[in-house]
Amino acid sequence: MGGPEIDHLIALLAKLPGMGPRSARRAALKMLQQPEARMLPLASALAEAARAVKVCADCGNLDSRDPCSVCIDQHRDRSVLCVVEGVGDLWALERAMVHHGLYHVLGGTLSALSGVGPEDLNVQTLLARIAEGEVREVILALGATVDGATTAHWLTDLLRPTGVAITRVGQGVPIGGALDVLDDGTLAAALRSRRSA
Amino acid sequence: MGGPEIDHLIALLAKLPGMGPRSARRAALKMLQQPEARMLPLASALAEAARAVKVCADCGNLDSRDPCSVCIDQHRDRSVLCVVEGVGDLWALERAMVHHGLYHVLGGTLSALSGVGPEDLNVQTLLARIAEGEVREVILALGATVDGATTAHWLTDLLRPTGVAITRVGQGVPIGGALDVLDDGTLAAALRSRRSA
Repeated sequence: MGGPEIDHLIALLAKLPGMGPRSARRAALKMLQQPEARMLPLASALAEAARAVKVCADCGNLDSRDPCSVCIDQHRDRSVLCVVEGVGDLWALERAMVHHGLYHVLGGTLSALSGVGPEDLNVQTLLARIAEGEVREVILALGATVDGATTAHWLTDLLRPTGVAITRVGQGVPIGGALDVLDDGTLAAALRSRRSA
Repeated sequence: MGGPEIDHLIALLAKLPGMGPRSARRAALKMLQQPEARMLPLASALAEAARAVKVCADCGNLDSRDPCSVCIDQHRDRSVLCVVEGVGDLWALERAMVHHGLYHVLGGTLSALSGVGPEDLNVQTLLARIAEGEVREVILALGATVDGATTAHWLTDLLRPTGVAITRVGQGVPIGGALDVLDDGTLAAALRSRRSA
């Protein structure tokens, strides 16, 4: 309906995370009603981002500069590296403004199921960064999943010989969370990581 | 984070219906990881749709041709016009394949609150189409809202002198709907429009 251009646009919009055919139709319709104000700006923002954004050769972040704006920020503590699975995790930590060191994006976790092995992860550059001698602590900020835990163990073994301190993010009750809605695994982790009050 | 191009893209994506800041970030990230496969195709689909799509001068539909593909379809019953509020309603009826006549898109409903008056609606072309003499029935397929009902009453009065049959879509229990979750207005409408079994 409306010709091949509209159908094609709806099909592409529907593939975006969080969108489906229904919201894609609504989005396409809303934009079609104001093509100059809504569609062309988004079209050029997409083209511009695709042109400008690169992968940071140091840490794996996505940024319009390489090295990325985190890596070149001289106010950051260059002795602490926070290892994350993906760029989304890096963004989340930056929004929370809780990490003042640098990052290292692994680009995934080890996964037997998905066939992701050590050679698929961005670890050679991690070892190279540590070898430069400035890093004192590596924080493993991986998800509390089976693959995340496997990857954390493997990285711990791999990085041990370098002599840097290796830490893992704490697990337990999320802030604002009630205990009675948490799963057993989280409750167990929360009890294990108890501290004196 | 990630530079102005990413921030700008996320801000525009977040304005799409069904999207928010969180899903916009996820969508931007997913596309940034495959710019050639994901971003550039969407950028060109948007630009292409903005270029190609026009408003049908006859019925108000959005299509890459004018008159639109519904209006030029010679298999359709040109004696029945279905009046809808917006192009989204026309698309919904076409997907349901329940109307085999033509359409007329009003472009809104009368609304004292939003300041929409008769002069803001696409009615002059509706009267002109009826004056051509081919139309025998006008189906008012407007929403079951206060503004929809007001507009239907006003259109009924306006079209009465033309002598065409004027009908309104039925109201009642949605197919697949249980009675106990329906609001009072729908239940009242369903009882009012009861038929012998």
